[in-house]
Amino acid sequence: MGTGQLATLIMQGFDGPVYPIHPTEKTVLGLKAYARIEDVPDVPDMVVMVLPTGIVPGLLANCGKAGVRAAVVTSGGFREVGGDGFALERELTAVAREYDIAMIGPNCIGVSNFNIGLNTTYYPYEQEEGGVTVISQSGTYSCHIYGHTRRMGIRLSHTASVGNSAIIDLAECLEYFADEPTTRAIALYIEGIADGARFVEAAKRACANKPVVSLYVGGTEAGARAGMSHTGAMAGDDAIYDGMLRQCGIQRATSIEEMLDWCWALSTQPRSPGNRLCVLSNAGGPGASMADTASREGLEVPVLSEGLQAKLREHLPYTGTGVNPIDITFLLDYKALYDTIPRLLMESGEVDGIVMYGVFGTLLFRSRQKALEGRIDYDVEALVPMYMALIEGFAKLSSEYGKPVLVSSFWGRDDDALAYLTDIGVPVYPSPERAVKAFAALTRAQISGS
Amino acid sequence: MGTGQLATLIMQGFDGPVYPIHPTEKTVLGLKAYARIEDVPDVPDMVVMVLPTGIVPGLLANCGKAGVRAAVVTSGGFREVGGDGFALERELTAVAREYDIAMIGPNCIGVSNFNIGLNTTYYPYEQEEGGVTVISQSGTYSCHIYGHTRRMGIRLSHTASVGNSAIIDLAECLEYFADEPTTRAIALYIEGIADGARFVEAAKRACANKPVVSLYVGGTEAGARAGMSHTGAMAGDDAIYDGMLRQCGIQRATSIEEMLDWCWALSTQPRSPGNRLCVLSNAGGPGASMADTASREGLEVPVLSEGLQAKLREHLPYTGTGVNPIDITFLLDYKALYDTIPRLLMESGEVDGIVMYGVFGTLLFRSRQKALEGRIDYDVEALVPMYMALIEGFAKLSSEYGKPVLVSSFWGRDDDALAYLTDIGVPVYPSPERAVKAFAALTRAQISGS
Repeated sequence: MGTGQLATLIMQGFDGPVYPIHPTEKTVLGLKAYARIEDVPDVPDMVVMVLPTGIVPGLLANCGKAGVRAAVVTSGGFREVGGDGFALERELTAVAREYDIAMIGPNCIGVSNFNIGLNTTYYPYEQEEGGVTVISQSGTYSCHIYGHTRRMGIRLSHTASVGNSAIIDLAECLEYFADEPTTRAIALYIEGIADGARFVEAAKRACANKPVVSLYVGGTEAGARAGMSHTGAMAGDDAIYDGMLRQCGIQRATSIEEMLDWCWALSTQPRSPGNRLCVLSNAGGPGASMADTASREGLEVPVLSEGLQAKLREHLPYTGTGVNPIDITFLLDYKALYDTIPRLLMESGEVDGIVMYGVFGTLLFRSRQKALEGRIDYDVEALVPMYMALIEGFAKLSSEYGKPVLVSSFWGRDDDALAYLTDIGVPVYPSPERAVKAFAALTRAQISGS
Repeated sequence: MGTGQLATLIMQGFDGPVYPIHPTEKTVLGLKAYARIEDVPDVPDMVVMVLPTGIVPGLLANCGKAGVRAAVVTSGGFREVGGDGFALERELTAVAREYDIAMIGPNCIGVSNFNIGLNTTYYPYEQEEGGVTVISQSGTYSCHIYGHTRRMGIRLSHTASVGNSAIIDLAECLEYFADEPTTRAIALYIEGIADGARFVEAAKRACANKPVVSLYVGGTEAGARAGMSHTGAMAGDDAIYDGMLRQCGIQRATSIEEMLDWCWALSTQPRSPGNRLCVLSNAGGPGASMADTASREGLEVPVLSEGLQAKLREHLPYTGTGVNPIDITFLLDYKALYDTIPRLLMESGEVDGIVMYGVFGTLLFRSRQKALEGRIDYDVEALVPMYMALIEGFAKLSSEYGKPVLVSSFWGRDDDALAYLTDIGVPVYPSPERAVKAFAALTRAQISGS
């Protein structure tokens, strides 16, 4: 475990000095190892401890004596296992207090700060840094999610796995990330909160600065049972947590995927000035799904004015419709699709943002050209500059007009246009419904948040 | 459009003869083209028509005269655009009736049968054939989804886009696929149903043979408006559709993604004999999320008996818990994880199936070995045979015990173990919650279905 975490730190490209400590090995992963913290020729800014439970408090004390003031304690076997674990955790906490060590854990995977290539988890994160910070009572949800976020193109700023929260807890993390400038949205995974009053205070302050989305899993008997054995968290009634989160201004998601979906939009797009959604699609099914989902989410899909519809019709084929949803059907005029029509909508004042289905780059054309070599006479490469120029303009619409633009597609980052959009901060959701739900999160964030 | 559809047919590897018909071109995509259906030296089993609306009825009549008895009419501009479109569609329908042509469409993308490499859509489907058949009032949802299903590893049997349903409608497709032997689960996208009585009869019969999952989007004002302009579908009150679908035995999903998620499990796994779920995880957060979601879905996550817990504890580290969720925490004993523990659970009689989080192949180890070449001394390749043998055994548990096993992971088919599982028919969901919801669909399918 410790070797894996060190491997990640190296792979992540952290450029500060790293000192492995090992009782017998002379080197670990090619780095000179030290037998004891006392032997390290420097006072580390932080230690990461992956050790048998019983010896953790004593060795943390040694770190404290050596001047260390921050620690990640990965080791488990404390409060979460019951029995002797309670006493061991009290002992550990007393050591951290005595030496004024900002300790995260025990029973946690630690912290990541992608601005400086710091990642104490088991998994490297292969993506440029972004604006989503994850604060989690689950270590998994602070690092296994890299597989998901990387595939989607969601960019993270920090992750913090608080484990048993002996010293640093969710509330303290909220306080910190409320002011941390690269964090634009906070995802908060909750199994249970010990000090409700302190949490509410921190959460209200955080929500005044930036949007916070939570997943709370302790509101059912089975969920509470799981949390108890996981981090020793005391869960509570679902309705009480629901009300508390709402009072704080925290949006509540129903899954880890949804929490990250919403944070993706909240960290990249302007808040929607209202709840009037324009559904723009070149495919009828996704258009209908998006309209239906929007209604269920309390969004308005307003019928556009006759004047605006007339303007839109100038750019639509006769099979298309400009009522809203706008169904472009089959249209090879990419300028209309990515530029003229969205601008007419943005300038109309009739809608507060756009969710679009129908962005395709050259993935299909490339595969077709390759498969049918000699049979077809077009050259995909020749189309790319024109096409990408339109996509680049499309990506800027949200900042230009101050209204969100979200996209959905069944294709992913293997398509050049979709990869470009996610890289530049236009979320591309893997289903029409998820894009609309994320739009709804943007409208709800108006009441608080920046 | 037509050239794109022909390109797909070639790329899909359809091995029957294909005759392009084009008024002026001598060849299309390297195939000899014919000016008129009358010139084709054979009676095609099926024609695909992508033509200006006005000339479609006349040319379909020519096909009928030439002996063609099946047609896909891709062209739009009929009933769905209103006005003259109604008359044109009546004319087209009369032609199809006159010549006894099994016509699908108009305004549709056609059909796919992956058992014979037939795919009339714009998109090739790069996956081996499977058991999910999609019947859809949206062409997009019968082909754009290939991007999604391929990424996930969901394998399709057929797709049918019914468009305006002038002759062949959802009910007729249900009748056909109820008996089609490679179809093991049916996904049904509905915008509106014209003949309710006929639909109910066909649906009840289909549900007696195999599970059917639907997405109905016409139950809101905005969804109904979208469906009307898309396929001219007459939508109806959400509660009425909800009741009708339930009476038929059709499960109702809330998104296209969920519909396919459920069909994936239903087409590959045995039905769950009951609703007692075992949550098995090597990570606390996903374990808690799965338990919480299970409770919300009406599943039981039973506390395991003391006897079974004692047996499980023999194979768990002291930080683990065997209550249910079973949290293995950090365990390098892969045999326990993939074999001993699941078998104890399957044999106990205390649970009706397993949803597991925590399958990892060698993706991480390979990336680590590559990044830290020279610094680490293990060889990933040496581990693969042992590891894959365990995964192969794990994949067979569901058929061996007649109880479903579903997996969730934040990684995808880029990992060897996860690709193997999906290839062999163990669904791997991209989030813990989605795996549990799919398990719930397996328990609901007991009441009808095979």
